[in-house]
Amino acid sequence: MHQNKLEEILAAVSEKRLSVEDARKSLANLFSEDVGFAHVDHHRSLRKGFPEVIFGESKSAEVIVAIMERMLAQEDVVLVTRVSPDKAQTVRARFPEAVYDADCGALTVEKKPLPDQGRGEIAVVCAGTSDISVAKEAAVTARIMGNSVATVFDVGVAGLHRLFAHDAVIARATVIVVAAGMEGALPSVVAGMYPKPVIAVPTSVGYGASFGGLAALLGMLNSCASNVAVVNIDNGFGAGYMAAMINRKQ
Amino acid sequence: MHQNKLEEILAAVSEKRLSVEDARKSLANLFSEDVGFAHVDHHRSLRKGFPEVIFGESKSAEVIVAIMERMLAQEDVVLVTRVSPDKAQTVRARFPEAVYDADCGALTVEKKPLPDQGRGEIAVVCAGTSDISVAKEAAVTARIMGNSVATVFDVGVAGLHRLFAHDAVIARATVIVVAAGMEGALPSVVAGMYPKPVIAVPTSVGYGASFGGLAALLGMLNSCASNVAVVNIDNGFGAGYMAAMINRKQ
Amino acid sequence: MHQNKLEEILAAVSEKRLSVEDARKSLANLFSEDVGFAHVDHHRSLRKGFPEVIFGESKSAEVIVAIMERMLAQEDVVLVTRVSPDKAQTVRARFPEAVYDADCGALTVEKKPLPDQGRGEIAVVCAGTSDISVAKEAAVTARIMGNSVATVFDVGVAGLHRLFAHDAVIARATVIVVAAGMEGALPSVVAGMYPKPVIAVPTSVGYGASFGGLAALLGMLNSCASNVAVVNIDNGFGAGYMAAMINRKQ
Amino acid sequence: MHQNKLEEILAAVSEKRLSVEDARKSLANLFSEDVGFAHVDHHRSLRKGFPEVIFGESKSAEVIVAIMERMLAQEDVVLVTRVSPDKAQTVRARFPEAVYDADCGALTVEKKPLPDQGRGEIAVVCAGTSDISVAKEAAVTARIMGNSVATVFDVGVAGLHRLFAHDAVIARATVIVVAAGMEGALPSVVAGMYPKPVIAVPTSVGYGASFGGLAALLGMLNSCASNVAVVNIDNGFGAGYMAAMINRKQ
Amino acid sequence: MHQNKLEEILAAVSEKRLSVEDARKSLANLFSEDVGFAHVDHHRSLRKGFPEVIFGESKSAEVIVAIMERMLAQEDVVLVTRVSPDKAQTVRARFPEAVYDADCGALTVEKKPLPDQGRGEIAVVCAGTSDISVAKEAAVTARIMGNSVATVFDVGVAGLHRLFAHDAVIARATVIVVAAGMEGALPSVVAGMYPKPVIAVPTSVGYGASFGGLAALLGMLNSCASNVAVVNIDNGFGAGYMAAMINRKQ
Amino acid sequence: MHQNKLEEILAAVSEKRLSVEDARKSLANLFSEDVGFAHVDHHRSLRKGFPEVIFGESKSAEVIVAIMERMLAQEDVVLVTRVSPDKAQTVRARFPEAVYDADCGALTVEKKPLPDQGRGEIAVVCAGTSDISVAKEAAVTARIMGNSVATVFDVGVAGLHRLFAHDAVIARATVIVVAAGMEGALPSVVAGMYPKPVIAVPTSVGYGASFGGLAALLGMLNSCASNVAVVNIDNGFGAGYMAAMINRKQ
Amino acid sequence: MHQNKLEEILAAVSEKRLSVEDARKSLANLFSEDVGFAHVDHHRSLRKGFPEVIFGESKSAEVIVAIMERMLAQEDVVLVTRVSPDKAQTVRARFPEAVYDADCGALTVEKKPLPDQGRGEIAVVCAGTSDISVAKEAAVTARIMGNSVATVFDVGVAGLHRLFAHDAVIARATVIVVAAGMEGALPSVVAGMYPKPVIAVPTSVGYGASFGGLAALLGMLNSCASNVAVVNIDNGFGAGYMAAMINRKQ
Amino acid sequence: MHQNKLEEILAAVSEKRLSVEDARKSLANLFSEDVGFAHVDHHRSLRKGFPEVIFGESKSAEVIVAIMERMLAQEDVVLVTRVSPDKAQTVRARFPEAVYDADCGALTVEKKPLPDQGRGEIAVVCAGTSDISVAKEAAVTARIMGNSVATVFDVGVAGLHRLFAHDAVIARATVIVVAAGMEGALPSVVAGMYPKPVIAVPTSVGYGASFGGLAALLGMLNSCASNVAVVNIDNGFGAGYMAAMINRKQ
Repeated sequence: MHQNKLEEILAAVSEKRLSVEDARKSLANLFSEDVGFAHVDHHRSLRKGFPEVIFGESKSAEVIVAIMERMLAQEDVVLVTRVSPDKAQTVRARFPEAVYDADCGALTVEKKPLPDQGRGEIAVVCAGTSDISVAKEAAVTARIMGNSVATVFDVGVAGLHRLFAHDAVIARATVIVVAAGMEGALPSVVAGMYPKPVIAVPTSVGYGASFGGLAALLGMLNSCASNVAVVNIDNGFGAGYMAAMINRKQ
Repeated sequence: MHQNKLEEILAAVSEKRLSVEDARKSLANLFSEDVGFAHVDHHRSLRKGFPEVIFGESKSAEVIVAIMERMLAQEDVVLVTRVSPDKAQTVRARFPEAVYDADCGALTVEKKPLPDQGRGEIAVVCAGTSDISVAKEAAVTARIMGNSVATVFDVGVAGLHRLFAHDAVIARATVIVVAAGMEGALPSVVAGMYPKPVIAVPTSVGYGASFGGLAALLGMLNSCASNVAVVNIDNGFGAGYMAAMINRKQ
Repeated sequence: MHQNKLEEILAAVSEKRLSVEDARKSLANLFSEDVGFAHVDHHRSLRKGFPEVIFGESKSAEVIVAIMERMLAQEDVVLVTRVSPDKAQTVRARFPEAVYDADCGALTVEKKPLPDQGRGEIAVVCAGTSDISVAKEAAVTARIMGNSVATVFDVGVAGLHRLFAHDAVIARATVIVVAAGMEGALPSVVAGMYPKPVIAVPTSVGYGASFGGLAALLGMLNSCASNVAVVNIDNGFGAGYMAAMINRKQ
Repeated sequence: MHQNKLEEILAAVSEKRLSVEDARKSLANLFSEDVGFAHVDHHRSLRKGFPEVIFGESKSAEVIVAIMERMLAQEDVVLVTRVSPDKAQTVRARFPEAVYDADCGALTVEKKPLPDQGRGEIAVVCAGTSDISVAKEAAVTARIMGNSVATVFDVGVAGLHRLFAHDAVIARATVIVVAAGMEGALPSVVAGMYPKPVIAVPTSVGYGASFGGLAALLGMLNSCASNVAVVNIDNGFGAGYMAAMINRKQ
Repeated sequence: MHQNKLEEILAAVSEKRLSVEDARKSLANLFSEDVGFAHVDHHRSLRKGFPEVIFGESKSAEVIVAIMERMLAQEDVVLVTRVSPDKAQTVRARFPEAVYDADCGALTVEKKPLPDQGRGEIAVVCAGTSDISVAKEAAVTARIMGNSVATVFDVGVAGLHRLFAHDAVIARATVIVVAAGMEGALPSVVAGMYPKPVIAVPTSVGYGASFGGLAALLGMLNSCASNVAVVNIDNGFGAGYMAAMINRKQ
Repeated sequence: MHQNKLEEILAAVSEKRLSVEDARKSLANLFSEDVGFAHVDHHRSLRKGFPEVIFGESKSAEVIVAIMERMLAQEDVVLVTRVSPDKAQTVRARFPEAVYDADCGALTVEKKPLPDQGRGEIAVVCAGTSDISVAKEAAVTARIMGNSVATVFDVGVAGLHRLFAHDAVIARATVIVVAAGMEGALPSVVAGMYPKPVIAVPTSVGYGASFGGLAALLGMLNSCASNVAVVNIDNGFGAGYMAAMINRKQ
Repeated sequence: MHQNKLEEILAAVSEKRLSVEDARKSLANLFSEDVGFAHVDHHRSLRKGFPEVIFGESKSAEVIVAIMERMLAQEDVVLVTRVSPDKAQTVRARFPEAVYDADCGALTVEKKPLPDQGRGEIAVVCAGTSDISVAKEAAVTARIMGNSVATVFDVGVAGLHRLFAHDAVIARATVIVVAAGMEGALPSVVAGMYPKPVIAVPTSVGYGASFGGLAALLGMLNSCASNVAVVNIDNGFGAGYMAAMINRKQ
Repeated sequence: MHQNKLEEILAAVSEKRLSVEDARKSLANLFSEDVGFAHVDHHRSLRKGFPEVIFGESKSAEVIVAIMERMLAQEDVVLVTRVSPDKAQTVRARFPEAVYDADCGALTVEKKPLPDQGRGEIAVVCAGTSDISVAKEAAVTARIMGNSVATVFDVGVAGLHRLFAHDAVIARATVIVVAAGMEGALPSVVAGMYPKPVIAVPTSVGYGASFGGLAALLGMLNSCASNVAVVNIDNGFGAGYMAAMINRKQ
């Protein structure tokens, strides 16, 4: 806890500038504020410079609308992840200004875009066309959190020339998000080429011995490049969020 | 590949300022330099602003000495990881200026310390006393790569007041490395409290159903806080390296 | 087997107060009574001070009604777990006095509530909103078994201030049930704060490397707090039952 | 946090009975005391009515002696778990009053035994002779925490008459700890016979498809009896600790 | 290969009683007959004293009817396993004499029952009501293969008195099949009580950490009773078949 | 990179026969051609003597038609794998010349068959009738890549005489593909009999402890015959492709 | 429990031929005798026609000698499994008549051989030379339990002609034990050729993806032949015991 | 079986050119020869153009010498794999002409080298220096089987320029063996660049979540390049053997 604020409150009590009851409340708030930046349920209450986020997958369109109404009363920017097309239609009937990304199911409302929060650009790279939905979720998340994002899709390791063709874009990024399924080898290759922090997202793309993304996950955790850290399978949101954290001006 | 350099070389050939043979060599180098920043075998050849790193675990003291001699001929800073105490003794007989960290087995030589590479401070936090060796490896790695590092050890989730006591140190960090074994819950708690990128390192501390760190690894991958990314079990080196990448001035 | 009853029966036979045939039957009953407290199929025949319990998931509404009719002929209290809303409607058409908890699918009939069986209060805590169904099953089970139950929901480790806000409720409990999915870290934190027996219930909430609750299960088994014991994934019924056993007056 | 104490401190500050500096310290202590009951590193600092506990496995005899000296300065009772025979000899040379249990490696010092903390007796049951070390660790832990403990060893499910022979002892217990390796079936059988809370401890006894205790662990988690909760493989200390928590007078 | 037949054929060739061409065919047949007892695709062509068996799960009613027509042309007894109720209806429209077991989906036709093949009786025991379908498949299979079968259902280890009540039936069996899900402990208990070969069938009954029957499977493989051997999860057919093999008169 | 071509381009630049801009483009192409043989997304762009391949499973009929139209503009042969019957109908309405294999869902168009690419014949063998779809995918793939293919189906290890009956066909093959589910033993037996390279394909045929083909996969990886290499579960396409690579004239 | 004996005792009490006290004792014995056939700790107390068995692996030579002395006082035959050569030497110094099988570490004493217990011969087959120790343990166990045993070693599936060469021996057996490591395919092949009960023993022979025998275990559980049941990895004792049970005259 | 030989034998019998007894023997041999090419125990009896192979790991130096003596009596070439340096010394004392490869422990004797068996050259590639032992085993095996072998070591995916530097060597190979540990990504990259059959060997190099080579194994099985097939972890022998099979002239 912030020593300064604590002593300040106590001094105010001591000097009768603050009642005991009010001090008790302030102390409670003080603590809450300390940890108040936390976000809940993976997506909720990203406050202070970040947009509000709703995890849409397990919520009905009606519930999503209700939460959005409450949030938009006090927030400029709202992100809803994993919204199916039909739910999106219902939500957009209520919020026509909402933008829907059909690739990843993200729904965004920007009453006023967030100011640029980033030190530089974030690159989001993916291996195959089937990984695009996860990559798009990362890109949308990072963008709405106030970052400039460049995307490079379908550049898997079985045809490296495709990756090399996008060298300039990737080389200038501050952080690189790499999504890949199957053997999950792309993050190692990218991290070997660029001395930047790489956030690797295994995807569940694959079949048989991919075991729902486990093969890609293990591959990324065992990367022979050291500038790689990994998030959960298919967690595009988390990768975009982490990249935004890293890219953030301090 | 850098378009500019490529065209420059070709223009020089065209203008006869460069022979075909020399151009061929330059093109080869150009490509190598592009990806030359890569480090090999987890530890080797971290060039351009980073120290040289040797993975000591599977190498004899004699081999380590031999590699160090070659490296120190052209490098200012060398890091050898996972050196046992008896090997360390042999190495230090040859390089008395080498500093040995008995907690994590890292051995460092700094002919001239690297200039400060970081935007801010890196905090390295660990849950139990048994996690200290992994945390120290992260700290030594980040420090020798030119970063200011603060450590907060033994602040596991079963006694959160210990963590809160170090609030000021953690709150001011740019990046936070968190090492934990057993259930691996500390990164979630830390990431919930501080809006900073958290690099989580599962450790193999535990027994029975910890399955050599698997329980901690899965816990961290499933963190309910989104500002968490994970490296391999016991990979303190990788965590420190990744943190240095994130903290790096651009 | 109860020595006393056995000798009593034998004495009665010896003294011709009991026929050989009746003695044979009594001995059979004696044994059965000994182990007769057992409940079958996870839910069946919780006799002697506990309500009857029916596992509703794999049974049709008609079968549930038939079993309830038979049970209510001799029991004051019946609990049916995991009843879908449409089955619940059918059942309540027959038993309008039945109370349905839509969150967890528990259906209860109390002709006459059980007398208070508990030494104190049971607290049921859960990490996220998605864990509420499991937590409610635990709460309903413990309550219908004659316990006073307090619930504290949505207090995950990524925002600990929420947990601290409910300190008074949790602190006074005799036993604490904690349900959590994803990394399953909440039981460790709660058990670290309160010197009470904590029954941890991993939930299948999560995706990717949560592997259907396995990550949470392993996390809880490896808790760095020792006052934690674990039940099966999503087994809210078992957690509530175990808590009732612990809280029971003797 | 305790509202009363908080308001009391604030009132004292307001009334100048307490300086701001002292109040700051008191508030820090207040919080620490709140969660201070936690024990660290599985074994450390079990305060307030519980003995001090040291996890001996990874510590040298010298370190154990040093910690014991510090602890015994202010504690009446100390428990050191998993001490090898040769380390025990060194420790007992310094503390001749220490009692060593060669079966489980527990070393205890009781300057003055703890007063009886239990509501009743704890029964510790194990399946085979190879499970005795784990069962003894549970028994020693529960006993030193101020409980009366009865042990019933070598009563596996392949010869149930052996279990039945100990009916009286088990039937009178308040809590039952059951340790078993291989298929881990004993807790189900015991829990089916006795309506008491059963703490199941899987042991790593077995080979082949027992996978280091995994088979027993899964068996116990899937118990068809509901009054069973499970601790980590070979975690006799945790089982005894949990049983003591449950048996504790409030 | 049968030496006698081989020499007989060769002698016949030598003596011109058999042409080279016919001898070549005979030798081919000789070999086929040698291994011809094999059954294919788990269920096909159980010849020589066993009925024909069809694995119905992945076949349409039309295909089942077609195969049955062909088989019944030359066989007295046919067994079709895992037939859904609606497929069964279609099949029975064509073969009204077919008997359908709705519990396990087995469909049998006996133009003329097989003569008794067994040395004694086979007992089929199961733990819970949900295991009955697997147990019934074992029973139907064993019965149609010419065995006398006794069934004892719903006698799980959490209420052992139920098992003891059926002592006489189980005690007289030559072979015992035991099906159980969840922790799969019943085969150990039964094998401990009766010195008979026990064929254990794990079932997929359970949830969470039962992992589709894996917990029961591992439990049975680690049985502390040695007269237990195990078949695949839910493989009632295999258990009944194996029991029939064991019970077979030679 | 091809030294010759590189020097040739540079010489042309030096001699002004090639502009700097054209040289830059040529160098880019040069590199691409180097790795240009790669195929992307498991199925895409198999150039230079191989047909084009489309992975149909996750694509709509409309998308498949669109891609086929573009491909057939410049290719003689196209293969679409894993097309459902209804999608196939739509595709064939547009391309009546397309041939559909209902067993494995492969759809092929051959404007002009590829010339024979093989050194010899490829044999595709499978264990049970349920493995035929995977085996057919391998056979269709190898055939369309310009190979002569012989198929031997339903020759599982439980009836080896069936395998022996096809000796002549298998013995003359250059490469053998063997598909098997359940215990996956057939590749070992085949590889033991024929000194040829065997490509083993585990299939997901089975239930219970087959764990979706894992049992067969592990069996094949542990083959006691050394002339066996393995592809992913159900990956008939990959097996046929690999066999074609091996059989290819050089 | 035996109805007859129970009524007999009760009648004796009723008729004063038996005192209440004696009747109580008899009833206790009655129950114990009922289940007394069980063997404990995998190896102990195989009474009534079977030899005594001691699991030697975790016992010192001294303990083994002590138990043997006690056992041989009342038993004709004793089996000690898994005795290392040096322990065997110590034991044989005390019991020179003991026979030691160095292949599997079994040590046997036969004061007087058990009479033949078997209906026929047991065949023990193994795949490779490394599987011989497990196969020998099965053979020694079955033999000492009063069975005629034939062994066929080193007949793995990669060279089937070796298996065929032993056709006569295997064909005449009543039960077949098959031990195999690596892919564990031999039981399927044997069971496909011979319509006999096959007890499959996976061995831990192998490396890499054999995962300590898991590959062989899964292969055997998924056998496409139905006359196969499986025991634990390396459990030669259990396989021999089970085979003896099956072969036993009734 | 070979029809021709069979009819030939029968004709000879018919024409009295062959006695019945000799015909019986010939038929037995015929069959054995058919399958006689098989090699047993992973390494034994690779006849007809391949050298004899002995798996040295579990054999004493004396046993190895004894087997070699027997083999060299009739073979020109012998390969012993996995021989430790001290065993190698003993063996070479007896066979001074034996060549020992200290990197992989292979010991070879060539009385007369095998004639060239290959269609072209085999390339053996590995990712890191720690993978060299496995790669060398593959290379030695392929070479002694009569192949020309080129090796390219230490070209992992984190520094692709190293791989590109060896383009010419790899491009001209008929078959490519690729060994890699950690994430096992190299085979995908190589197979994407070269349209040749790639035999991938996962190695156990790595730690933590590499799980003894499992991560690399899964990565290779899920390769996005289709010209990849996989052998067991660390199975350099098998990879070299398979490559020799593929490269073999027919």
